[in-house]
Amino acid sequence: MEDAMTRTDAGPELATELPDEVSTPRDAATDSAKLEVDAAWLGEYLLGRWAEERKASRALASKPEFQFVGDLSLAEHRERVLAQLRLLVENDAVHRAFPVRFGGGDNHGGNIAAFEELVLADPSLQIKSGVQWGLFAAAILHLGTEEHHERFLPGALSLEVPGAFAMTETGHGSDVASAATTATFDEDADEWVIHTPFRAAWKDYLGNAALHGKAAVVFAQLITKGVNYGVHAFYVPIRDADGAFLPGVGGEDDGLKGGLNGIDNGRLHFDHVRVPRTNLLDRYGHVDPDGEYSSPIASPGRRFFTMLGTLVQGRVSLDGASTLASKLALHIAITYGSQRRQFTAGTSDEEVLLDYQRHQRRLLPRLAQTYAMSFAHEEFLDLFDQVFSGASDTPSSREDLETIAAALKPLSTWAALDILQEAREALGGSGFLAENRLTQLRADLDVYATFEGDNNVLLQLVAKRLLTDYARKFAKADAGALAQYVAGQVGEAAVNRTGLRQLAQTVADFGSTARSVGFVRDEDSQRQLLTDRVHTAVAELAAKLRPASKLSAVDAAALFNRYQNDLITTARAHGELLQWEAFTRALAQVPEGDTRQVLTWLRDLFGLGLIEKDLAWYLVHGRLSGKRAEAITAYIDDRLLPRIREHALSLVAAFGLTPELVRAPNASGNEQRRQDEARAYYATLRASGEAPVDEKALKAAKR
Amino acid sequence: MEDAMTRTDAGPELATELPDEVSTPRDAATDSAKLEVDAAWLGEYLLGRWAEERKASRALASKPEFQFVGDLSLAEHRERVLAQLRLLVENDAVHRAFPVRFGGGDNHGGNIAAFEELVLADPSLQIKSGVQWGLFAAAILHLGTEEHHERFLPGALSLEVPGAFAMTETGHGSDVASAATTATFDEDADEWVIHTPFRAAWKDYLGNAALHGKAAVVFAQLITKGVNYGVHAFYVPIRDADGAFLPGVGGEDDGLKGGLNGIDNGRLHFDHVRVPRTNLLDRYGHVDPDGEYSSPIASPGRRFFTMLGTLVQGRVSLDGASTLASKLALHIAITYGSQRRQFTAGTSDEEVLLDYQRHQRRLLPRLAQTYAMSFAHEEFLDLFDQVFSGASDTPSSREDLETIAAALKPLSTWAALDILQEAREALGGSGFLAENRLTQLRADLDVYATFEGDNNVLLQLVAKRLLTDYARKFAKADAGALAQYVAGQVGEAAVNRTGLRQLAQTVADFGSTARSVGFVRDEDSQRQLLTDRVHTAVAELAAKLRPASKLSAVDAAALFNRYQNDLITTARAHGELLQWEAFTRALAQVPEGDTRQVLTWLRDLFGLGLIEKDLAWYLVHGRLSGKRAEAITAYIDDRLLPRIREHALSLVAAFGLTPELVRAPNASGNEQRRQDEARAYYATLRASGEAPVDEKALKAAKR
Repeated sequence: MEDAMTRTDAGPELATELPDEVSTPRDAATDSAKLEVDAAWLGEYLLGRWAEERKASRALASKPEFQFVGDLSLAEHRERVLAQLRLLVENDAVHRAFPVRFGGGDNHGGNIAAFEELVLADPSLQIKSGVQWGLFAAAILHLGTEEHHERFLPGALSLEVPGAFAMTETGHGSDVASAATTATFDEDADEWVIHTPFRAAWKDYLGNAALHGKAAVVFAQLITKGVNYGVHAFYVPIRDADGAFLPGVGGEDDGLKGGLNGIDNGRLHFDHVRVPRTNLLDRYGHVDPDGEYSSPIASPGRRFFTMLGTLVQGRVSLDGASTLASKLALHIAITYGSQRRQFTAGTSDEEVLLDYQRHQRRLLPRLAQTYAMSFAHEEFLDLFDQVFSGASDTPSSREDLETIAAALKPLSTWAALDILQEAREALGGSGFLAENRLTQLRADLDVYATFEGDNNVLLQLVAKRLLTDYARKFAKADAGALAQYVAGQVGEAAVNRTGLRQLAQTVADFGSTARSVGFVRDEDSQRQLLTDRVHTAVAELAAKLRPASKLSAVDAAALFNRYQNDLITTARAHGELLQWEAFTRALAQVPEGDTRQVLTWLRDLFGLGLIEKDLAWYLVHGRLSGKRAEAITAYIDDRLLPRIREHALSLVAAFGLTPELVRAPNASGNEQRRQDEARAYYATLRASGEAPVDEKALKAAKR
Repeated sequence: MEDAMTRTDAGPELATELPDEVSTPRDAATDSAKLEVDAAWLGEYLLGRWAEERKASRALASKPEFQFVGDLSLAEHRERVLAQLRLLVENDAVHRAFPVRFGGGDNHGGNIAAFEELVLADPSLQIKSGVQWGLFAAAILHLGTEEHHERFLPGALSLEVPGAFAMTETGHGSDVASAATTATFDEDADEWVIHTPFRAAWKDYLGNAALHGKAAVVFAQLITKGVNYGVHAFYVPIRDADGAFLPGVGGEDDGLKGGLNGIDNGRLHFDHVRVPRTNLLDRYGHVDPDGEYSSPIASPGRRFFTMLGTLVQGRVSLDGASTLASKLALHIAITYGSQRRQFTAGTSDEEVLLDYQRHQRRLLPRLAQTYAMSFAHEEFLDLFDQVFSGASDTPSSREDLETIAAALKPLSTWAALDILQEAREALGGSGFLAENRLTQLRADLDVYATFEGDNNVLLQLVAKRLLTDYARKFAKADAGALAQYVAGQVGEAAVNRTGLRQLAQTVADFGSTARSVGFVRDEDSQRQLLTDRVHTAVAELAAKLRPASKLSAVDAAALFNRYQNDLITTARAHGELLQWEAFTRALAQVPEGDTRQVLTWLRDLFGLGLIEKDLAWYLVHGRLSGKRAEAITAYIDDRLLPRIREHALSLVAAFGLTPELVRAPNASGNEQRRQDEARAYYATLRASGEAPVDEKALKAAKR
């Protein structure tokens, strides 16, 4: 295989590879313009399985009372969002995921779908409602038993008891297992003693903690009879009816934040606060009146991850909300870019921004990425629903769900920040005005990159899983077989089992496919390159880390640390592959026709864009020749960008974002009106014969 | 040369190339720890030529009354910053650049140095004072004559007349030449008639326009006797003593923005507003009472660029302020990263964040970049001072200054956003708290990427200059010579003449240098690779764009557009080379010793980081083999990061940012105190014998 794809295998030029192709970007655009995207159909397709729930939530988000307004004080914004939560309750918008007897529908996927759409109204509303019902109430539901549901869920659901989700501590964020708050069982009193031993153990960054919370689900080390059984969740009242802290409870306001200021984040600490034994949410760990601990899950490690796994919906919803914010940003920037004109390009008319190659390069690959995120999220949400509805709730499917969450949440939350920023810059100065929304959305979504699991930490979880799968696969392989694999042999032994589906395709005859005509635009070639990227990197890392098993703990840690960056970039490549596969599967369901053709170009732009971004890897590993690499870039510039540009407005129209959801003046058509007025003015002036002569023309005439 | 550096020339492994080197990252760190950086000396060195002005400005920025406070309403923040401007006047902090007779010192470099330091207090203060004295008053100074100085400067300097700089229009930002506002001369009245013909011609985003401005320097098309002489500047009163618009003047408030809300940005429009003939700031274009136009610069194009060139200081100061904000961000993140512990790495102790490779990869290359930005800015400011003081004011030096401004301002403004964001994420949830300052700074600096010239537009100016220089150089060369050049022949004919100094070094015997021992860490090799990157890209682009001269205007524009992205990435590479050269020149002035050794590693990290970022280009063009490429990454990971990590705190200490300037609780040592307290607690607990037994240990014991 190395022979077939060495770096000196330059291959034919793209022009001769694609004889049936048009020859200039303008020709590509002209041909593409003959196609018509069915934006209405595509819009429904994008809404996916939970279209009804999404539409219901968008109807709420379209109402001014749910929407962000600027220039509120911290206190005013917090009050406004609290009132919006009450409105959600009044609108029966918060119960979907809960049991029927509490007014819910056991509809887990639909609940998240509806919830994430609230980001279009105000991310503070999305996140504060997420704290109340997606974390606080959900912890009661998933970590508690029926007795807890009866006692605590009604108040949580009705918002009679606003609650904090007290997991993170000042000293421990993503490393939940090391939380330092203790819950020690007092047999005599049949009570838990919740205690904060030092400042770093204060619970921190908790929504509802600064002001509105009446209770908290507190994560603490469960200690009984002198044994620490690890982190468990306890229901702890924190404030009385007047809003004063209960005895032993204290706290601080986190104050102003970079965004999400509609949420009253704060700190909590506990000085030997006592709650009844039965306030332990004990689905996964129970303590008898005599202090004996029992659990349905014997392994402390597996128990911990099972408990945390019930809270994966936070990551699901951030992935979805980030995708929605990206859609909104691109709707705004592409609308404006299709109307705004600046500088001339060979004629007296100024050029539309989106006709500039650079502007296409800035926005269209991000449009392709957003489609990939959207299709990947739909599959992710479906798997989440299967697990949480019980339709397919196995340890293996839960583990897959965790891994996919850890792979997709970092990619989409980072992508949203990048896309919001590029959109803001693409609007120039007007992008910096609050009225065009991009800056505020970016400020709010900033923290998505580090909460619900720091992105860099999550990607390491993915890498760990990739290595584990690899090790399982090759447990019986000898060193020689491994070395051969590492040398680049990517045969049928696809190691990557952590896909949205199992990646079972054979990576066959890599070399000859790569040589074929039309290589760069071929779906199978994209798949092979992207898959091989992940497989080979995993195999290389496994080989490099193999000595760790024979080293001391400290030396093994140092060895892992030496490759930490590679581990994370490999996990990222894996996540990108998941997105590409989801896009490709979604594409396969689109009926033959113009829409499918345009979406195929968009998928190709996503896939080839990933390869282009990681080009050095493919070159160093001999997977692409320099000529082929250049052909990919030329294909993007000459074909894909001009073709997709023709349909950019249709592709954002399919996001279905109505004016009430967009609310950005510069995506309203006002720029088009300004341009039309200006052009009409100059046309009239020229026709009048009274236009001033240009000095340059005058000089030329005098010569 | 191609032969010497083909992609199949793998070269020896790094390990054998560097036999005298230590063998693991830990060894590299241990050896490096023996060195000591002289942070005090380095601090003075970084302060540079205008150290006194910087210190004076930092003293002001250290006072609470100049500093940003959170949770102010829009109105309150605007009033606060206006009051701060008055305080600056009282502190004699605004006159430095102005003539002695107005209380100034004709100190152009020192003025900018002092002014940009204000970003440490509040970017709104920096920018609003920039509007008043760096744009409004500076336009009077540079575009007006002595008569204007006498009439208008005293009020502008004293802040008796807050002024707007009315250049940008809603419809035209970076394309100033196309501004649509007109100033038509009325001979009978001896007056200018300032007029806004349509909505897109409203002046927009102007500081001081919404509220405080009493006058404006308005840029408008100068029309007299039926001839349009292009954009000129006019002094136009806009509000009366009570703050009401004068007759014919109207406007709107731009409202809330993504940041910089201490500045009252707004819109202005003019309905046949009359000002005396003498209100034309007529240093570069004069109109007689009989309406005859005259100018010391005959060429309309050169006249326009000369007038705009007098305002380059905006770009200089954004470059400096971005560098300072980057220093502050890294001070905060590296301080915190040196104290914060999370997860264990083979011992019972948790690991310090900055000992993780990923954390080093996130922060240390950005530290190197910030040093490069700092040294490049110092040279840039020096050239600015030479031009504006008249010490070296030639058309050529002005042209160089413009090009360097257009190259450096995009790089540093984008870098600041990237660095502020990475620092914010490196602080986890605490980075999102306003008290740690990173989110607010990022929000404020966001607009730096698009004002004072959109970054993408500026980089195209740089590319244009590179191509022009190339064309001049090869004006007499035949096609064969060009083709040979394009094929990769980088000999003595260095085309890149737009450096901070002329890049006159001979790029000699590229191949044999590349083969030598220690290739990857060699200064000359870095220079050759980085220089060749720019030269070759320019030559390739020149060849691709060569047919344009024979095409119609429309087809030529389409051809340029096809390579617009390449033009911009080439300009970016040129800017990076300027930064690398400035770093290298600054390094040459550092006395032999430990500090120089550590700075050399830092410069290498910057240079090799640039090569790594652009690796695909070097591979595709056969400038590096795959093995060499991998050796660069390994050298960064095994040597440079662990070595520099040992001195990271000293390297940020040299930024000289005192607690009053930093003002971020999590860079104050509080994290260290929390860590110490937590560790002491656990040590005491273990010593007491009363620590709970871990469940896992218990299970192991029971087996």
